[in-house]
Amino acid sequence: MTQFLTTFENLPAESTRGWGFEGHGFALNQRGELQVQGHVYEFSGQVYPRVIPWICGQLGNKDTFAATKFDSHYPPPLKHNPNTAAVRHAIEGELPAELVSDDPIHRLRLSLGHTMEDICLLHGTEEVPAVDLVFTPTEPEQLDSIIALAEQHRFVLVPVGGATNVCQALFGHGTAADAPGRVDAVKVAVSTASLTKILSIDEENEIAHIQAGAIGRDILHALEQRGWTLGHEPDSIEFSTLGGWIATRASGMKKNRYGNIEDILVDATWHTPQGGVFHRTATNPRESVLLEPNALVLGSEGRFGIISSAVLRIRRKPEVVAYDSVAFQDFSAGFEFMRSIQRSGAVPASVRLVDSIQFQFSQLLKPTPTGLSAYPKRAASWLQKFFISRIKGFDVLKIAGCTIVYEGTAREVATQKRVVSKLARRHRGVLAGTANAKRGYALTFTIAYLRDFLFPYGVFGESFETSVKWSDAPRLWEAVDATVKRAHAELGLPGVPILTLRATQVYHDGVTLYFYLGITVARDHPTHSPIEQFAHIEHCAREEILAQGGSLSHHHGVGQLRRRYLPADDPRTLAIENLKQWFDPHFVLLD
Amino acid sequence: MTQFLTTFENLPAESTRGWGFEGHGFALNQRGELQVQGHVYEFSGQVYPRVIPWICGQLGNKDTFAATKFDSHYPPPLKHNPNTAAVRHAIEGELPAELVSDDPIHRLRLSLGHTMEDICLLHGTEEVPAVDLVFTPTEPEQLDSIIALAEQHRFVLVPVGGATNVCQALFGHGTAADAPGRVDAVKVAVSTASLTKILSIDEENEIAHIQAGAIGRDILHALEQRGWTLGHEPDSIEFSTLGGWIATRASGMKKNRYGNIEDILVDATWHTPQGGVFHRTATNPRESVLLEPNALVLGSEGRFGIISSAVLRIRRKPEVVAYDSVAFQDFSAGFEFMRSIQRSGAVPASVRLVDSIQFQFSQLLKPTPTGLSAYPKRAASWLQKFFISRIKGFDVLKIAGCTIVYEGTAREVATQKRVVSKLARRHRGVLAGTANAKRGYALTFTIAYLRDFLFPYGVFGESFETSVKWSDAPRLWEAVDATVKRAHAELGLPGVPILTLRATQVYHDGVTLYFYLGITVARDHPTHSPIEQFAHIEHCAREEILAQGGSLSHHHGVGQLRRRYLPADDPRTLAIENLKQWFDPHFVLLD
Repeated sequence: MTQFLTTFENLPAESTRGWGFEGHGFALNQRGELQVQGHVYEFSGQVYPRVIPWICGQLGNKDTFAATKFDSHYPPPLKHNPNTAAVRHAIEGELPAELVSDDPIHRLRLSLGHTMEDICLLHGTEEVPAVDLVFTPTEPEQLDSIIALAEQHRFVLVPVGGATNVCQALFGHGTAADAPGRVDAVKVAVSTASLTKILSIDEENEIAHIQAGAIGRDILHALEQRGWTLGHEPDSIEFSTLGGWIATRASGMKKNRYGNIEDILVDATWHTPQGGVFHRTATNPRESVLLEPNALVLGSEGRFGIISSAVLRIRRKPEVVAYDSVAFQDFSAGFEFMRSIQRSGAVPASVRLVDSIQFQFSQLLKPTPTGLSAYPKRAASWLQKFFISRIKGFDVLKIAGCTIVYEGTAREVATQKRVVSKLARRHRGVLAGTANAKRGYALTFTIAYLRDFLFPYGVFGESFETSVKWSDAPRLWEAVDATVKRAHAELGLPGVPILTLRATQVYHDGVTLYFYLGITVARDHPTHSPIEQFAHIEHCAREEILAQGGSLSHHHGVGQLRRRYLPADDPRTLAIENLKQWFDPHFVLLD
Repeated sequence: MTQFLTTFENLPAESTRGWGFEGHGFALNQRGELQVQGHVYEFSGQVYPRVIPWICGQLGNKDTFAATKFDSHYPPPLKHNPNTAAVRHAIEGELPAELVSDDPIHRLRLSLGHTMEDICLLHGTEEVPAVDLVFTPTEPEQLDSIIALAEQHRFVLVPVGGATNVCQALFGHGTAADAPGRVDAVKVAVSTASLTKILSIDEENEIAHIQAGAIGRDILHALEQRGWTLGHEPDSIEFSTLGGWIATRASGMKKNRYGNIEDILVDATWHTPQGGVFHRTATNPRESVLLEPNALVLGSEGRFGIISSAVLRIRRKPEVVAYDSVAFQDFSAGFEFMRSIQRSGAVPASVRLVDSIQFQFSQLLKPTPTGLSAYPKRAASWLQKFFISRIKGFDVLKIAGCTIVYEGTAREVATQKRVVSKLARRHRGVLAGTANAKRGYALTFTIAYLRDFLFPYGVFGESFETSVKWSDAPRLWEAVDATVKRAHAELGLPGVPILTLRATQVYHDGVTLYFYLGITVARDHPTHSPIEQFAHIEHCAREEILAQGGSLSHHHGVGQLRRRYLPADDPRTLAIENLKQWFDPHFVLLD
């Protein structure tokens, strides 16, 4: 697997104050330079002297880091539901007491994900509408009891895996709480944190049966120890769970070889208020028996039931794993390369294209050589110095970088390398080596930490993504860029917005575009609170994406955040609401 | 594409009396030898002198062709619904008169598929519960009017494409007709035969928008003329339609390269009684927006709506198309080869394995050389003579044959050929050349004709299929073989049953097994009519398949035929029934 962690064992606890492992992330050192904290990452301890000035430059505000603007009030107060005691009393003896918790930190952690709004709530002073209790079943059968108890005592269940969502999947608990008579319903997170077993590995059929609460990194590590891989590596793999992947239709960076979750999933077992436990009667590779049962759980986002385990396709660990990168004169050139790679039929496991901003950032994450003073402090000059001599004719501030992961047999990888070389040349790309590629992938795992680091300085950031036909993609990214600039200007916000783009997945008929948006918020804006400023610009970007033919989401899901964009009269929406009513007639589950 | 037709233009009309083109099929010539009738196939006009004695041998009855046992009473009487006139009257002026037909032959053709029971009805004297009218809309919008009229005047709609089904999809019209007050409802086939346009080809995104009534062979021909291919080639491709493929979750022989219909489908447009017209708001390559909308139409078998068109992935015509075949000492050796090919990651577009019976049959279809008398009449001796000298150590009556179609770039095909050679050697296979492979594929297109040819002689035959995990497959085919023999013996039927096996599709975690069953029925059986004899044995085989962990169907679908095997309390069944009620609250559509 893509090696981003130096160890898979004795890892620190997950932080409850933001993304990642406790004690890990970014901080300013005494010289005001960016430094990586913690010890579990390859780049732990590194100092990046050029990043801070570069960020200031990108945001058009040299004083970005002069002082923090937002103090953390962690932990925030939690909304108290007076009916909680009655529920606790009612379930006494029905569920082992050790499975039930009302610990505020636990409740808080399982109520929020990682959108910008979640972060504001996490560190703010407002009452968080958190779940009132947490149930952590240790046996799948307990899910049935929990559902029955919820029906009987009219509390609402919120299935939670890794709580890494960026769609407000858990936040607010939506219409289930708004249903008649449910406004004051007690909300209970059903955590799959104790359902983490690898139940079986079937070597003959190359499938594994795994419990839904297993975390990505643990699944991969356990399989690798036995010579296998799942190949499913969403960027959240360190913390997200199998159940979450299924419920949200997750995509992995190596999907060209291994498929997305819908390709990997053979069968899910899920527990519903209606009709009991769902799973296939036999796990067959492919059927034509009316509707595909997996299709009812993939993307269900916890609405219809709680997933307890799944059978997944696994593969032998690849013979060869190799990295490479290609620099292109601009994003458009790299984009055409991406399309030609997809059309070649020899597409490597992962091919990602980052725009010039992310390319620069990844270059700035190069290990600091000794003799710092030998390099000019200004990032652009430094980049210039490094690149201009190597890549003739490229404007250093426009270079786009493509990172590639090859996995497969020696034969497969050799073929793919040949095709990549040929197509790179055709699109005037320059092969830029393994180190750049590894750094590109490492970037993926730092960026969520970076967002949390920037928050106190009033720099709000978040990612959003879409999938779009090849032909519509360039117009889409240009339109989104213009819209973000316009919305930013209309709000009269300080500095300039950062909008940076990555093409993360290639498909036959289109591509995934992944944006990061960063703005410096105004503390005292006449009409919009800081989070409203950010939300407004993101909203404008989303509307533009939809107007340009992009999908509402490629892999982040809908949650509460993007629900508003689903047309109420869309037949798909209506069909799903109907299924919800059938699966969960009493609105026991989150909706 | 796999060249089975000598032309795609000015083809004869489709027969209404059985499978295929009018005037095409098999017949006995004056010497009592099997001869191919018609002119559209490569093997048209061929005489196969060894097939008839060989079939007699397989069935253990040398008198099989001594006389016909079943006369055709075609056309059979159709059940008359006295309410038909009232419906015709009610829709007058609402629908162009030329779209409405009550022609008995048309009604009959659109009411039956190609199961053995359908064939018995087609040639029998019993009243066929056919549709009462046929509507053939020319514009998609007319589907909405038709649905509205059906709701208003309470008649039942039966969406029909190519009517090639082998699951009694149209036969009986099931519960829609049994719903309260619907027993006497008029049944109307909605034929997509006039919705056949290729609406657009988007060369940039490699997708095409095609109307649902387009027939497979026409789609492929039209795309090939423009340099493209769909790559979807179910064995019914000569007559089945796009809409039918979607509604039944069709599988194509070249799915290893092109995918099955669910992989090829980008978006379907379908018209439902509830919620109007379904389709994606934008055709994106992949989304995580709640449930996958295609999943609601794939496998719906006409229950939820009528498909008018679909957007499909297309590909440039392959640079190279090549055939090969490999002979193995027995089916098990070939089976292990199939699995190793799947595991190799270099699997050709199509890899199929036939057992010794089909292998012998395909050898008997070799063009007759001049100087017939030079060859012994007994098939086994002839095979022996041909093979024993070439393939040392193989028992000629156990040889299994694997046919391969390579498609792709020169590079892809070269790689696959190398891998096939290597793995064939490893499994002690002998490369058997292109001609054997082509003959193997041709066999596919003859076999339905052969069934119709055998019927009058009291030889009843049909295919059924399943998908199953690799590890369960050998036990399954052995158990089905034993069960068929036992059931045949228990009924005391004449001769011996033929059960022949093909592995048609390989998947990561399993394989598709495709059986042909043939028996000589008894005219005067004490307890079972001829069709009951056949149905009983097939039923026993199906129960055995399910008991051994096989799926109810890999690509034939459920229809009325396999509905009885769906457990009534299976949550999947219940969820689908619920969707039916929502999509079609007044049971306007076939169920």
